[in-house]
Amino acid sequence: MSTFRPDHLVGILGGMGPAATAAFYTKLIERTQASRDQDHLRVAIWADPTVPDRVGAVLDGSSAPYPVMLAGARRLHALGATVTVMPCHTAHAFLPALVDDTGLRFLDMVAETVAELGRRGGAIARVGLLGTRGLISTGLYQDRLREAQFDVVLPTETTQAQVDFAIKKVKQGDSMAAAWHLGKAVGAMTEADASLVVLACTELPLAARYLCGARRAALLDPTDLVADAVIRECRSARAARTSRTAD
Amino acid sequence: MSTFRPDHLVGILGGMGPAATAAFYTKLIERTQASRDQDHLRVAIWADPTVPDRVGAVLDGSSAPYPVMLAGARRLHALGATVTVMPCHTAHAFLPALVDDTGLRFLDMVAETVAELGRRGGAIARVGLLGTRGLISTGLYQDRLREAQFDVVLPTETTQAQVDFAIKKVKQGDSMAAAWHLGKAVGAMTEADASLVVLACTELPLAARYLCGARRAALLDPTDLVADAVIRECRSARAARTSRTAD
Repeated sequence: MSTFRPDHLVGILGGMGPAATAAFYTKLIERTQASRDQDHLRVAIWADPTVPDRVGAVLDGSSAPYPVMLAGARRLHALGATVTVMPCHTAHAFLPALVDDTGLRFLDMVAETVAELGRRGGAIARVGLLGTRGLISTGLYQDRLREAQFDVVLPTETTQAQVDFAIKKVKQGDSMAAAWHLGKAVGAMTEADASLVVLACTELPLAARYLCGARRAALLDPTDLVADAVIRECRSARAARTSRTAD
Repeated sequence: MSTFRPDHLVGILGGMGPAATAAFYTKLIERTQASRDQDHLRVAIWADPTVPDRVGAVLDGSSAPYPVMLAGARRLHALGATVTVMPCHTAHAFLPALVDDTGLRFLDMVAETVAELGRRGGAIARVGLLGTRGLISTGLYQDRLREAQFDVVLPTETTQAQVDFAIKKVKQGDSMAAAWHLGKAVGAMTEADASLVVLACTELPLAARYLCGARRAALLDPTDLVADAVIRECRSARAARTSRTAD
């Protein structure tokens, strides 16, 4: 059973997109050990899907989405969020500014992913990266992965088109159609010798549910990692000590 | 495509339990016609699963959960929720007090369900009711259903025990095990000549996903109705007019 610090509050800056936000909240619940409601995390979600398109903004060097994101983050701060997650990789381009402007403690999906790959160590030689054109253009993942001595496999134009289509289909509520395109993209990555493929867009795990086991085995979902990081962070000092002793 | 009023904000007073809250938010997204993020509803969720047990409180005539529920509702009010939903039927015992104390506009799952049954009219003679012992003890559904001239089939002790167990299993994250017990309860209701069974506990729809089609056909899920009511409520006046013309 998880025992959480009495003052904890998980903030989720969501809506980018909404289905990815709901899936992240569901994941947080499923990954919490609980036998009753009161064992679960206190969570506040601000989900404003009217945030302007992040991909276009990042590609154009525009900060158009930022004011709406900042307004949402300020609401989570006012509610008392002790740890905050933004389940949108492309939006992580604005994470340093959000931290500076709000003082919120954000967990960073890119950092959690690179740390996990570091723990897995030598077994992973080449890391495939699937995300929006915006995310890829920021270099957020590539720079940190290369710093950590990983080779990075980036999508070709054909593969990127499959990823774009998969994301669009999830946003339209058709994750099963999305899976077909994601499967093609994952296949292309493994053919390019990626030993593992990072789903660096929060819509992609919704499509990945419909992939066969062999395809899924090659995937790493950063939202799993950040959900577990949230749970660790909110544990009471006593429970955390017990857990370390038990490990 | 849904066009929502620019000032809309859906408040969800959740955490009772968390999985039911996540499922309700997911349902709201799935039932919104959208081709991109920006077509979706703005949503604020306050999910505090540390609200004391509602079932025990209702059975004992205690108001122990109320202060925590009220504190959550006040947060949604401060955020500017224009319409609010509380995806927990048992907690609806406290709904009139929440409305009085906050002035929030709450949509009422019981009222939405009775209205839908009224629209279905003569085809429904006897309505089966499955919910917590607390919900059943309040008479919230029975009184309004009988006012609307429906016969109500209540669970026997054996059936109630199946329902209790199903709810507990969902709260423990095992909706598939819950489905077995829910299936028994639904079967008992149809054997008692219920022409339709209301899932008057927000955990039960999570188990119902795993029932066979014949069992599912006999069910009415109030969270479907209230999700649709939220979407209607948030539509812009212009979109609502268009929709009425198109009907």
